Amino acid sequence: MTERHRVVVIGSGFGGLFATKALRRAPVDVTVLAKTTHHLFQPLLYQVATGILSEGEIAPATREVLRRQRNARVLLGEVTAVDLAARTVTSVAPTGSTTTPYDSLIVAAGSSQSYFGNDRFADFAPGMKSIDDALELRGRIFGAFEMAELATDPDEIDRWLTFVVVGAGATGVEMAGQISELARRTLPGDFRNIDPATARVILLDAAPAVLGNFGQKLSEKAAKQLRRIKVDVQLNAKVVDVDATGIDVEDADGQRRRIASMCKIWAAGVAASPLGAQLAGQCGAATDRVGRLHLEPDLSLPGHPEVFVVGDMTAEQPGVAQVAIQGGRYAAKQVRRRLADRGPQPPFAYRDKGSMATVSRFHAVVSVKNLQLAGFLAWLMWLALHLFYIVGFKSRVTTLLHWTISFVGRGRSERTTTLQQVYARQALQRLDDSRT
Amino acid sequence: MTERHRVVVIGSGFGGLFATKALRRAPVDVTVLAKTTHHLFQPLLYQVATGILSEGEIAPATREVLRRQRNARVLLGEVTAVDLAARTVTSVAPTGSTTTPYDSLIVAAGSSQSYFGNDRFADFAPGMKSIDDALELRGRIFGAFEMAELATDPDEIDRWLTFVVVGAGATGVEMAGQISELARRTLPGDFRNIDPATARVILLDAAPAVLGNFGQKLSEKAAKQLRRIKVDVQLNAKVVDVDATGIDVEDADGQRRRIASMCKIWAAGVAASPLGAQLAGQCGAATDRVGRLHLEPDLSLPGHPEVFVVGDMTAEQPGVAQVAIQGGRYAAKQVRRRLADRGPQPPFAYRDKGSMATVSRFHAVVSVKNLQLAGFLAWLMWLALHLFYIVGFKSRVTTLLHWTISFVGRGRSERTTTLQQVYARQALQRLDDSRT
Repeated sequence: MTERHRVVVIGSGFGGLFATKALRRAPVDVTVLAKTTHHLFQPLLYQVATGILSEGEIAPATREVLRRQRNARVLLGEVTAVDLAARTVTSVAPTGSTTTPYDSLIVAAGSSQSYFGNDRFADFAPGMKSIDDALELRGRIFGAFEMAELATDPDEIDRWLTFVVVGAGATGVEMAGQISELARRTLPGDFRNIDPATARVILLDAAPAVLGNFGQKLSEKAAKQLRRIKVDVQLNAKVVDVDATGIDVEDADGQRRRIASMCKIWAAGVAASPLGAQLAGQCGAATDRVGRLHLEPDLSLPGHPEVFVVGDMTAEQPGVAQVAIQGGRYAAKQVRRRLADRGPQPPFAYRDKGSMATVSRFHAVVSVKNLQLAGFLAWLMWLALHLFYIVGFKSRVTTLLHWTISFVGRGRSERTTTLQQVYARQALQRLDDSRT
Repeated sequence: MTERHRVVVIGSGFGGLFATKALRRAPVDVTVLAKTTHHLFQPLLYQVATGILSEGEIAPATREVLRRQRNARVLLGEVTAVDLAARTVTSVAPTGSTTTPYDSLIVAAGSSQSYFGNDRFADFAPGMKSIDDALELRGRIFGAFEMAELATDPDEIDRWLTFVVVGAGATGVEMAGQISELARRTLPGDFRNIDPATARVILLDAAPAVLGNFGQKLSEKAAKQLRRIKVDVQLNAKVVDVDATGIDVEDADGQRRRIASMCKIWAAGVAASPLGAQLAGQCGAATDRVGRLHLEPDLSLPGHPEVFVVGDMTAEQPGVAQVAIQGGRYAAKQVRRRLADRGPQPPFAYRDKGSMATVSRFHAVVSVKNLQLAGFLAWLMWLALHLFYIVGFKSRVTTLLHWTISFVGRGRSERTTTLQQVYARQALQRLDDSRT
């Protein structure tokens, strides 16, 4: 029995999953090494945080998704080292450490939230990158209304009812829009002491526009729609500090001011997986300021044609799902062609299929080549595309049902938080008290 | 404006919720004080732990359930003290401490898992009482298969693939049955190194029968069906120790043996909320050995006709949902009659509406008065009744859908766990290593 060509894929996000699927009929053995047991449909994470969807709907078990692909196996583990010379990957799981040899390697370890050097912000303003983040934020968002209902001091009530979303990219815009609709459509009637509809939702960005990459026209339309649903859009506002009870902002004129707020959400920056720097160190590749790798035109590492890097870890392309999907498929094809002794493909070229973001229910912005759309039609396109990309028929059905409940109705049926999340805030508050 | 009669309800479980609802048209102001923000449909908790349902489906926000009941308000907080003389309740939330005065008090604080004095077991064998428990167990159950797939030592693989459920009451039986079906119906095909169908599921009880309270005939039928779906039922087996890697059992002959198992679930004992002992101390009421209160025939505290205790905190009745529901309604009616200056009701008498437990898909046991049923028909009754009692139309629809997926299909779409849950086991293992 001849040994089959071994492909190791690091990561189970869009890049890793689509690379693996594209190797379905290739004469290879694929090992997917991932830190989580699920594939995460990150673009809908904000809906888990705001009580619309359950975590299961956007994060199916990776091995369930790849169940029928007999040449692929999935192993849990956080990759701690890649040895380019020995061609091995070391990963750590609760059972211990595993070393997996490879003939070809596809690195799709993604990115994490970046606080631009201020990691202490993370405790007070969680990011939006994982299921852990989304459930933590679900606890904080719904919890803030609970705390406001309990509070008696008007300033304290205001602090609990002020939500600050940092970063006006797609994730920040969607998050701010959903919190505002939650406060004004879902929650009124649920409380007796407070009026949730008086909640302030502030969307902050240091840049001068929301959804900057959508172009001026759509950016302005999105800002207008955000203001219509009462999101307080504050641009040219740079965050200088974050603590338990608020956020310090510096405006364009250099003036500093404080926003008192208990619930802050960080949707501002990303940093590539530290694996990028480790690979760069071994092969001399250059990285950009957020740790993303400059690669050969075929997405391989300089001097290592057997190692590909795709998705959020690559410089020169935007950090969106399509870049990861296309990169993953491209790398898989490169592996297949090499095994078949066919010449290489043309260099990787990202085909921009466009961008979209929902601003509120029934209102989205879509930018596809020359088409610039804002409003209901754009929202229908958003709906269709996201339903199409959600993995699995079952999740599509339940997701559509939950969307009907939330968008046509006013309910959010996935509001449940754990005791740990409710009472962890106490510990957090103490943490902050001990600092001051 | 005359001040209305103030009713404080402690707890948002079956007792608290049904008491509050029964006061809907009464000329009172109801304050529900609860430690969680949700009402928990505890009988389906095992389905959240085994990936069938999402937490939102069995734990709707209490304030959403009571939204239309304008005389009720819900406040988050763990009750730390009841002062019977001052007629106040003190509760603690992340915002601080709150004191709420009452004219009538309905205490429905329920019970927690009891380890019969061995609280250190809790780290290694979580109970089945809260959403936190269910999500923790979800992580451990699905995680055990992940670890087995990674492990190379045959003994270690066996340890990960051995699941021990302690306690053969309804919760234990349902849990054991679901893990077995998960291993044999859902997971085969998902793994490459292990065969999940070889997993052992052991159901342990110190008593000589499963579902003892269902009578001998149904007990035997349940045991037979459990064995048919390959649950290893071990009776007359007393747990003497639990640690990270296994469980020590003493059989009827006094022999001790060890079961190597990484995933243990405790469904054995309950202890009434410590509020019971606190109330007993103030009014001289007697408590039984698990801290449940002996009350006046109208469920009031001796010497305190304005304070009622219902559900799991009361002695003399079984700790089931119906006892809490009927007790909650009875207490509410007593409050209403007193306000209307009508005479009291006859003493509280629990009307046993019967018991039911699912053993496997399409198979349940039902005991209603003289009717003793086991099999498919019983399962249909179980299905109808649980759908009826699930709160809210939306949850009914999505639950029915999830049940179709799981029982007719083989999928479990709510398998997602957090990173925290996956990697917390590492810490736990270290904790145990440091002890030995």
